[in-house]
Amino acid sequence: MLFDSLTIVGVGLIGGSVALAAKAKAATRRVVGVGRNPDTLAQAKSLGVIDEFTTDLGAGVRSADVAVFCSPVDQIAKQVLAAAPYAQPGALFTDAGSTKANIVRDLEGRLPAHLRFVGAHPLAGSEKQGAENARADLFESRDCVLTPTARTDAAAVERASLFWSALGCEIKKLTPEEHDLALATTSHVPHFVAALLAGSLTQALRPFTATGFRDMTRIASGDPALWTAIARENAVALGLALDRFGGRLDELREAVVKQDTDELTRILTDAKRVRDALGS
Amino acid sequence: MLFDSLTIVGVGLIGGSVALAAKAKAATRRVVGVGRNPDTLAQAKSLGVIDEFTTDLGAGVRSADVAVFCSPVDQIAKQVLAAAPYAQPGALFTDAGSTKANIVRDLEGRLPAHLRFVGAHPLAGSEKQGAENARADLFESRDCVLTPTARTDAAAVERASLFWSALGCEIKKLTPEEHDLALATTSHVPHFVAALLAGSLTQALRPFTATGFRDMTRIASGDPALWTAIARENAVALGLALDRFGGRLDELREAVVKQDTDELTRILTDAKRVRDALGS
Repeated sequence: MLFDSLTIVGVGLIGGSVALAAKAKAATRRVVGVGRNPDTLAQAKSLGVIDEFTTDLGAGVRSADVAVFCSPVDQIAKQVLAAAPYAQPGALFTDAGSTKANIVRDLEGRLPAHLRFVGAHPLAGSEKQGAENARADLFESRDCVLTPTARTDAAAVERASLFWSALGCEIKKLTPEEHDLALATTSHVPHFVAALLAGSLTQALRPFTATGFRDMTRIASGDPALWTAIARENAVALGLALDRFGGRLDELREAVVKQDTDELTRILTDAKRVRDALGS
Repeated sequence: MLFDSLTIVGVGLIGGSVALAAKAKAATRRVVGVGRNPDTLAQAKSLGVIDEFTTDLGAGVRSADVAVFCSPVDQIAKQVLAAAPYAQPGALFTDAGSTKANIVRDLEGRLPAHLRFVGAHPLAGSEKQGAENARADLFESRDCVLTPTARTDAAAVERASLFWSALGCEIKKLTPEEHDLALATTSHVPHFVAALLAGSLTQALRPFTATGFRDMTRIASGDPALWTAIARENAVALGLALDRFGGRLDELREAVVKQDTDELTRILTDAKRVRDALGS
């Protein structure tokens, strides 16, 4: 066993999948779930996702070798700070938040000396929600971005790499700010664009959708509260990325209205080259 | 057999799938393929997609009870006009083009009296190309939009309905202009948005994509020439739909920059409601 006791704060799709993967890969002996709602925690236990649970954050992290915060991104720093006094010496805290700069900034220099925090974002997810949709293989061969800073303890980064690797992830490292800029383009803009496309579908147009529309809007079924928090936490980078996307949209619109064959062909050919290189 | 002889003009993914479906459903005894490239036609024959082939359009439609034009949308009207003098009395011509107004307008009142044309658009496709990717079940339970006008012969519309129903389609009817406005929103804007998203992915950002990005950009692997033609043929409706999409993007960007929780929640909640109702 890599770790004796793992605590998951926020036992939803991601937290539940961390728990299942850690057990499946024998990375931990036991998993403790922490959340607000005892009913959903009891359900997660009955599904075999976690071994024990508590709604008391301090009690939940007390025996943890590793605690993974899988809450909405605007809750993570607060919860880490609240849990910190209860952590055992040498404990590793990490998270699975889709934004990193605010979280890391809010924690840096504010944690007790006996505790290490390493920001993380496993690039895996689903439009589905809840521990009942958790999967042991969700992180298999997925990248996990760790976001250490100059002040992050190197040994803690090593342990965080070991933990996320054990779940099946390949480890990448970025600064928190690099992470947020990159993900604004690769994840946050696509999510909101999917929402805009879905939101533009009137009842009358519904029969005239095909698989392309469904594939493109699938992620719009994601939890609005989670994505509102992501947009707020990453407002600056997301605003910039939406500006750039808007600029490209304006160029496209002009090419369409002018029936500019060369420019339309260029846009579509560039896109095909990039997408083909990405693989299925 | 519903029809004795079916001619497919343009034996690619769509044309090949019409051929396979018509054979699988016993809607026709034989299928003749027409195209420009004898090598790809020979390959389609060796794959069992078509029974015979010719590069001579007139010869190809001469014995057809039904001819389906599956060429790029900017070729269809020209080809129908060129083939018309060779059609046998009572032949039905139909098409599978993703735009309808220009095609129907270019043909209306210009065909010989012994020939009927009914515009059609089966809402099925793939980012893959070529007869080698054709599937007999491509149209199964998919909607097919017929676009008759006041001048279209009712009996011909009935035969076109029979033909496309036989392939597995459910029949919808719109005017050509209604069709192009609807598809601009449900298909053409999503396609170009997928292309813009794919085109915004630099080499450096590629490692930071997950399944959401892949799902949203899959259709960007489609044939640039086909989609350039669609954008040109549907320039007015697509320009309007891109305007509306741009307006929504501006609203979103403002909500992001202002960190407007209520507005972000509204956008995401509306989108989720629509997408959830659409089903998987």
